[in-house]
Amino acid sequence: MAATLAEVTVCIVGLGLMGGSLAAALTAGQRCRRVIGIARRQATLTQARELGYIAQGYLDPAEGLREAQIIILATPVRDIIRQIQALGPHLAPGCLVIDLGSTKQQIIAALNTLPANIQAIGGHPMCGKESSGLEAADAALYQDKLFMLCPLERTGPEALALASELVSAIGARRMILDAAMHDRLVAAVSHVPYLASVGIMNAVIRLAACEPQVWDVASSGFRDATRLAASDVTMMQDILLTNREPIITVLTELQGQLAAIKTALGNGDEQAMRALQEAACGQRKELQL
Amino acid sequence: MAATLAEVTVCIVGLGLMGGSLAAALTAGQRCRRVIGIARRQATLTQARELGYIAQGYLDPAEGLREAQIIILATPVRDIIRQIQALGPHLAPGCLVIDLGSTKQQIIAALNTLPANIQAIGGHPMCGKESSGLEAADAALYQDKLFMLCPLERTGPEALALASELVSAIGARRMILDAAMHDRLVAAVSHVPYLASVGIMNAVIRLAACEPQVWDVASSGFRDATRLAASDVTMMQDILLTNREPIITVLTELQGQLAAIKTALGNGDEQAMRALQEAACGQRKELQL
Repeated sequence: MAATLAEVTVCIVGLGLMGGSLAAALTAGQRCRRVIGIARRQATLTQARELGYIAQGYLDPAEGLREAQIIILATPVRDIIRQIQALGPHLAPGCLVIDLGSTKQQIIAALNTLPANIQAIGGHPMCGKESSGLEAADAALYQDKLFMLCPLERTGPEALALASELVSAIGARRMILDAAMHDRLVAAVSHVPYLASVGIMNAVIRLAACEPQVWDVASSGFRDATRLAASDVTMMQDILLTNREPIITVLTELQGQLAAIKTALGNGDEQAMRALQEAACGQRKELQL
Repeated sequence: MAATLAEVTVCIVGLGLMGGSLAAALTAGQRCRRVIGIARRQATLTQARELGYIAQGYLDPAEGLREAQIIILATPVRDIIRQIQALGPHLAPGCLVIDLGSTKQQIIAALNTLPANIQAIGGHPMCGKESSGLEAADAALYQDKLFMLCPLERTGPEALALASELVSAIGARRMILDAAMHDRLVAAVSHVPYLASVGIMNAVIRLAACEPQVWDVASSGFRDATRLAASDVTMMQDILLTNREPIITVLTELQGQLAAIKTALGNGDEQAMRALQEAACGQRKELQL
């Protein structure tokens, strides 16, 4: 395995927001020998080359993969899982595979099936935008953002060091944790808040059938509380369906909290309401977000 | 009743964020003859005078109220209700009382008990800030924001015209609706999203007891989804406890939506999940927020 990022060719599979931004950051900073890309559409490859994000693009994964010492999988989660299953024969021995999927246990299980002479590590950068696609890509997307790394049993110190160098190269902050804990944490801070936001939108859609004025009254509080509902449906569906158990655990906790609120409010129990509100308010104000 | 805003003295009861900003906007624009203020603490009155927001301040409501042709009640909802009950003897005949409370049915019921020679209208400007108090006041707070007006049966055309002139004077957009509908609409777009945000915070607090790393992983999505939980507890408690029935109706609808999501996810039902996600995503993207 190549010891430093500067020496390697990085092949990015999927040139959407995440992959495109990673290509842009690596190329702009001249942080590796060469960035190449794999996409399904020729137009995407052409655009990525014209933007100067990649040196070369391939429609056929077999061609691009064998040139690379680092392969980044930057597609939706279930595409990543399918791609891993087909990668094996095309990889150069000793190369490092990193994915950017938002859930980790099922991806890590797939990475574990790669040939023994391939290194691998799960990755999850905590960043994004409301808009998606290469048009929205931005070399600064990862700047100061958290980038979680979930090592496999096979992940050696050189592979971890190289992945860490990549994280630093794009300005992100590294956090190492295991895949099961990763999936529980993101269920809590990301997936369930998304589902709550979907639930609020759908509840108000129901009410709007009788009182369409409700949309005129929505303001900044509603905007923030429901922003996540506008996330890309396919991307989120892949995330949800590959993290069902942790999400259902947190969702059940949220249901319990809403039931407690409803009981306190129904009873006009000011003391119970205040306790619930103050706990949330105090902790929320402490967060540096 | 005075026919135009330019001729009247406006007395603002409560010089926090909302009252202070209203005073600032009226004074800065020289939109009325004079702005006076009533507060519980001398320091607040002194500060409001030093900032140039009010011409005169009073600790004793009896003194300030009798000078004014428009009285604005800008305190938390249940304070407004208590204050209305004590206002009667101190008001000048023919004056107009407007409140800025975030729920309307209980306030309107209280306004209905004012002497027959007093005009009144319920008001609710849809704006705010995370910070509260006179320090956070801003003459531009109401600019381009929705300002709902809920007339009483007694509200005559002159009173409505004067209240409307006030709304325009501070740059807000008027919407007239009845109090019951008002309370249903804000339960949906404001109060229940707040409670969902409190519920998410409290659910994650529970999980954080075992896995405190969860706070390190929270990022912009969590920030937005929980922003409302940091709202002022006392202000929100007044709102919740004066709007219990409409809130419980919407909360029940939200619970139904979350149950539907949980069932679909638990069953791995991709089609049902996609339908729920797409409805929310499509409507959210349509909103101009």
